[in-house]
Amino acid sequence: MAMITWLSDFGSASGYPAAMKGVALQICPGATFVDISHDVERHNVREGAFLLWMTAPYFPDGTVHCAVVDPGVGTERRAIIIKTQKHFFVGPDNGLLLPAAARLGDFSVYLIQNAKLLRSEISQTFHGRDIFAPVAAHLANGVAPEEIGPPAEEWVKLSFGQGLRRGDALEGEVIYIDSFGNVITNISGDLLPQAPRADLILETERKSSSARYARTYGELLPDTLLVTVGSHGQVEIAVNRGSAAQRLRLHPGDPIKIYLHR
Amino acid sequence: MAMITWLSDFGSASGYPAAMKGVALQICPGATFVDISHDVERHNVREGAFLLWMTAPYFPDGTVHCAVVDPGVGTERRAIIIKTQKHFFVGPDNGLLLPAAARLGDFSVYLIQNAKLLRSEISQTFHGRDIFAPVAAHLANGVAPEEIGPPAEEWVKLSFGQGLRRGDALEGEVIYIDSFGNVITNISGDLLPQAPRADLILETERKSSSARYARTYGELLPDTLLVTVGSHGQVEIAVNRGSAAQRLRLHPGDPIKIYLHR
Amino acid sequence: MAMITWLSDFGSASGYPAAMKGVALQICPGATFVDISHDVERHNVREGAFLLWMTAPYFPDGTVHCAVVDPGVGTERRAIIIKTQKHFFVGPDNGLLLPAAARLGDFSVYLIQNAKLLRSEISQTFHGRDIFAPVAAHLANGVAPEEIGPPAEEWVKLSFGQGLRRGDALEGEVIYIDSFGNVITNISGDLLPQAPRADLILETERKSSSARYARTYGELLPDTLLVTVGSHGQVEIAVNRGSAAQRLRLHPGDPIKIYLHR
Repeated sequence: MAMITWLSDFGSASGYPAAMKGVALQICPGATFVDISHDVERHNVREGAFLLWMTAPYFPDGTVHCAVVDPGVGTERRAIIIKTQKHFFVGPDNGLLLPAAARLGDFSVYLIQNAKLLRSEISQTFHGRDIFAPVAAHLANGVAPEEIGPPAEEWVKLSFGQGLRRGDALEGEVIYIDSFGNVITNISGDLLPQAPRADLILETERKSSSARYARTYGELLPDTLLVTVGSHGQVEIAVNRGSAAQRLRLHPGDPIKIYLHR
Repeated sequence: MAMITWLSDFGSASGYPAAMKGVALQICPGATFVDISHDVERHNVREGAFLLWMTAPYFPDGTVHCAVVDPGVGTERRAIIIKTQKHFFVGPDNGLLLPAAARLGDFSVYLIQNAKLLRSEISQTFHGRDIFAPVAAHLANGVAPEEIGPPAEEWVKLSFGQGLRRGDALEGEVIYIDSFGNVITNISGDLLPQAPRADLILETERKSSSARYARTYGELLPDTLLVTVGSHGQVEIAVNRGSAAQRLRLHPGDPIKIYLHR
Repeated sequence: MAMITWLSDFGSASGYPAAMKGVALQICPGATFVDISHDVERHNVREGAFLLWMTAPYFPDGTVHCAVVDPGVGTERRAIIIKTQKHFFVGPDNGLLLPAAARLGDFSVYLIQNAKLLRSEISQTFHGRDIFAPVAAHLANGVAPEEIGPPAEEWVKLSFGQGLRRGDALEGEVIYIDSFGNVITNISGDLLPQAPRADLILETERKSSSARYARTYGELLPDTLLVTVGSHGQVEIAVNRGSAAQRLRLHPGDPIKIYLHR
């Protein structure tokens, strides 16, 4: 089964995702498509990288992930394929693909160079349609990355960092605010003790707040600030039926500390 | 043909719908997916229930509808399957699935209990991915609901009520405001006389307004307040090229009366 | 392979696109669907026509494009099929389909009349579901347009006009503002000299601005106003990492002049 996921900052209503899919279907008729998101904030490579990291592992073996958040389109930034044990990633060499690929284990990086596999006319401003979509479709068809270009010797890195435990505190930073205002951190859920004291202290750059540990949002009263291990396996700060990001005025990149004992 | 529809309040750009679909494709490769909406207002079970009620009947026999508007995720609320004569519904036991299922005739309700058919690790906060998507995929593959869990003896009800005719007036309430600002009521279109007098009186809690009956929006001048039988078969209040909801300041749940004769 | 694209102003979260797709899948199970956009501005036929024009050429032979931006639904406006050499278009006869069809070469127009191929009950307000979706599905199944209705002798026209060169200036108008604020004009990229002087003068109704020619956005410093040939092959005005539409306060339909030499 040929399977391609799509992610971009084009806007789902822009027509650009459809143009990419049309091109891919010409090469790989009947492929199964799933949109991860086309509403990544414009040029926000880190946000796109997080969404890809979060969703890619749930797809079947053989899935090709085509991701385009590409402020450098048409400049000298390179176009790459990353091959992991069971998935492929296609996109610009700006770090976008790295966290998701690294999460899936060992990987190899290839440059996209074989012009015969791209669209015959390549625009300077829409490589999603002219380069990435055709390459994704060829990979979905079973073409080996070696036929598309040589191994890359270097590539742009991107990492969300790793929160850590220091004494009585977990220290990390905000990776992502989800559509409910839940705050996802770069602190692995494994660092949170199984049954932490109910009362934790959350410290942001602005203020300290008391929070409760909970297994899920609805376990506490509405409007309660809580710390949980989210569905991504990361420590997450939430408010039952509210927005933790708004309450704490947190944004991606902000540092956060969680004191486990007063 | 394996066919699954998806509905949630996750946000279409959140990555969460994609994670559900990836999981389902691992179990049921090549399934056909249709999104009903992922932009239901957060935790608005009634809005989700209406969208499902509105669209489910148009799908082929055998379709599985997977719907997740789930403020109680991870608490003791149960997870259910509803089997109607030709469709299946999968989701939380909070009323979300009921109006759509009831519209399709007789139905049976099953609890989701067979852990072998779910993801091996079940998060406390994302049952869409870990429980509902795999169950939907197994049903699409032809697994019988009896293999997934026992019949339920009770379940949470939800109904939009039924408007009625009392003397010269139709009385009901607003179920839904659509994307054009058209106001869909719980009054069946069958209650509206075939050729009502052109002038009707609309009474809301705020004010009385004169309105015209029309077969379709464009039949009257722009900005005319009109009463019609909408594409859902329900009495609908609209403004040609405008928003009836804004004009009348109506919201779901508001009562409405339509006087057929002055 | 049966392939249908969808475009409408219904709103992607409205449930209406899903109802259309359900109906189509009953007639043409397993068809491949691609959404172009369901968030065309309400009743904005020109915007819908542009998106269709922009994306249709990238789809495989045999694709059926079903497009519904239809302020006249239920009135006497007709329903049509346009057959081009390799694609079909289905929608209201209000110009929506014309630019895309004309771009693909010679075409023939047919009226939709064969009631046996439509839904048995036809609402006055949702022809997308009751007329256009079933017709699109029958065409995708290989039914000939002649079986659906007779050739039309006239139809509503719509064109974006064609910018032209007059002396040292390119003159045209804005067709579309994309999701990045890039301004797409009706001036063909062929009219722009290969290596224009770096400094151009842009003249709108409000003001004159100096702009630079660039092959792509990232070639210049952020915030630089630039003229390029966009991915649609049209002359496009953009701001690297900014919004040209906001900077110049341009809207679709606004006239624009580009002086190639001071």
